[in-house]
Amino acid sequence: MKIELAESYGFCFGVKRAIKIAEDNQNSSTFGALIHNSKEISRLKNDFNVTLSEDLSDFKKGDKAVVRTHGIVKEDLASLYRQEVDVIDATCPYVTKLQKISESMSEEGYDVVIFGDEEHPEIRGVKSYVGDRAFVVLKVEELERIALQDKIAIVAQTTRKVEEYQKLTSYLIENYKEVRVFNTICNATFENQNAVRNLASRADVMIIIGGKNSSNTKQLHSIAENLCEKSYHIEDTEEIKKEWFKNATLCGIGAGASTPDWVIQEVIEVIEKQK
Amino acid sequence: MKIELAESYGFCFGVKRAIKIAEDNQNSSTFGALIHNSKEISRLKNDFNVTLSEDLSDFKKGDKAVVRTHGIVKEDLASLYRQEVDVIDATCPYVTKLQKISESMSEEGYDVVIFGDEEHPEIRGVKSYVGDRAFVVLKVEELERIALQDKIAIVAQTTRKVEEYQKLTSYLIENYKEVRVFNTICNATFENQNAVRNLASRADVMIIIGGKNSSNTKQLHSIAENLCEKSYHIEDTEEIKKEWFKNATLCGIGAGASTPDWVIQEVIEVIEKQK
Repeated sequence: MKIELAESYGFCFGVKRAIKIAEDNQNSSTFGALIHNSKEISRLKNDFNVTLSEDLSDFKKGDKAVVRTHGIVKEDLASLYRQEVDVIDATCPYVTKLQKISESMSEEGYDVVIFGDEEHPEIRGVKSYVGDRAFVVLKVEELERIALQDKIAIVAQTTRKVEEYQKLTSYLIENYKEVRVFNTICNATFENQNAVRNLASRADVMIIIGGKNSSNTKQLHSIAENLCEKSYHIEDTEEIKKEWFKNATLCGIGAGASTPDWVIQEVIEVIEKQK
Repeated sequence: MKIELAESYGFCFGVKRAIKIAEDNQNSSTFGALIHNSKEISRLKNDFNVTLSEDLSDFKKGDKAVVRTHGIVKEDLASLYRQEVDVIDATCPYVTKLQKISESMSEEGYDVVIFGDEEHPEIRGVKSYVGDRAFVVLKVEELERIALQDKIAIVAQTTRKVEEYQKLTSYLIENYKEVRVFNTICNATFENQNAVRNLASRADVMIIIGGKNSSNTKQLHSIAENLCEKSYHIEDTEEIKKEWFKNATLCGIGAGASTPDWVIQEVIEVIEKQK
């Protein structure tokens, strides 16, 4: 069995940048998980004493707080500043841009439709930059139930699939007079997705590596699944099962934007042994 | 054989309005065909002495010039005013809106993509309201060959199909960071299209009545053709052939936005005789 890594995989620019920021700020705390990968978060704790806190009240005056790649809620950021915490912003610049677009559209009086997962920290953050008229949706059916005003802007979670986004924008275009469409989906996401698409169409088995709560990894897995029946989303080598590789001649590997190279290497080593 | 008229057909608001304006202005001249229906134009000439001129120089100071429903080129309108012609604007208000949106987007520095037929008078007019950066296209392949700037607006000829428009907007959304999408397609067009869609799916033969150069009639014919093999676009009763109705139990009739009721009635009478 041949093992082939997708042409583009793993850490995106924003994640690399955030890890660099965390490494440069030893003894700091991230407010929320810096990236969606518990293994990398453990490494940062062990090697750089960068801890993780989920509670604003943990931060005292002068503490270093690293803002996670997915960004945080506007009010929480204001609280950190009010608490005179030393805020170090590791928000992915693409997420910051998404927040800023949403905020400025809201200020200009637009209804802001956000294509994304209401529960995802990135979207919780983005939504907080919009006033009353923020509408987080994943599907056209949800849009159908909302009466939007005439001025409509739509933005997307950075890790979403563009085909799904186009379904929403097409609905809005058909049903409203003007729509300002911002393509806020990140190129790195595109590249990893295209690479998985390419590989999955040829592979007998696909392994997608990344955090179980990582949105972009879940997207990769969904793309792989459509093209390769035996597609598995794993976070850890322990999840790998020998039977997956039975009769396979090509095993493809993709990895989400928050998956460190060393985790990918570990997975490859374990798969090598299943042959 | 039963003959059934589409639930919505014929004259739209803009056409009705233009004819009313022409009738109210006896002894005037329209600059270009008022609507795309030669029979109605003959009627206006015979009954109201509203003549047709294709040449700006035909208009002298004090003459009454009726501006056609599809609108005219900005420069020609300016010429008429310079010639001190009495300009009576019968441009469809939806076309005027399309011109105004295009002009204001152009003034704000946007590249303006116009979904439409470069040769159609409506689009020749709309394009004249945009500076250098107007791009008239019908298909995605044409868009692929154009390098647009970052600020993009897209508008559509009022008589286009929304499904085709969505293909263009989806391409732009995928390939550019921001797109301002204006849905300038007219509701009357939608209604006539939906009615033909409805009827054509049940009919054995479909007759679409309207000018051969009428964009919206051609669209209706294309919708009918997809659902009913025996679909014919006629302008005149003389084109009707007995063999079309052989073995048919339901004959559906649709009509473009510039088709007068009296023409539709003539067609129905002739078809009645084919039974």
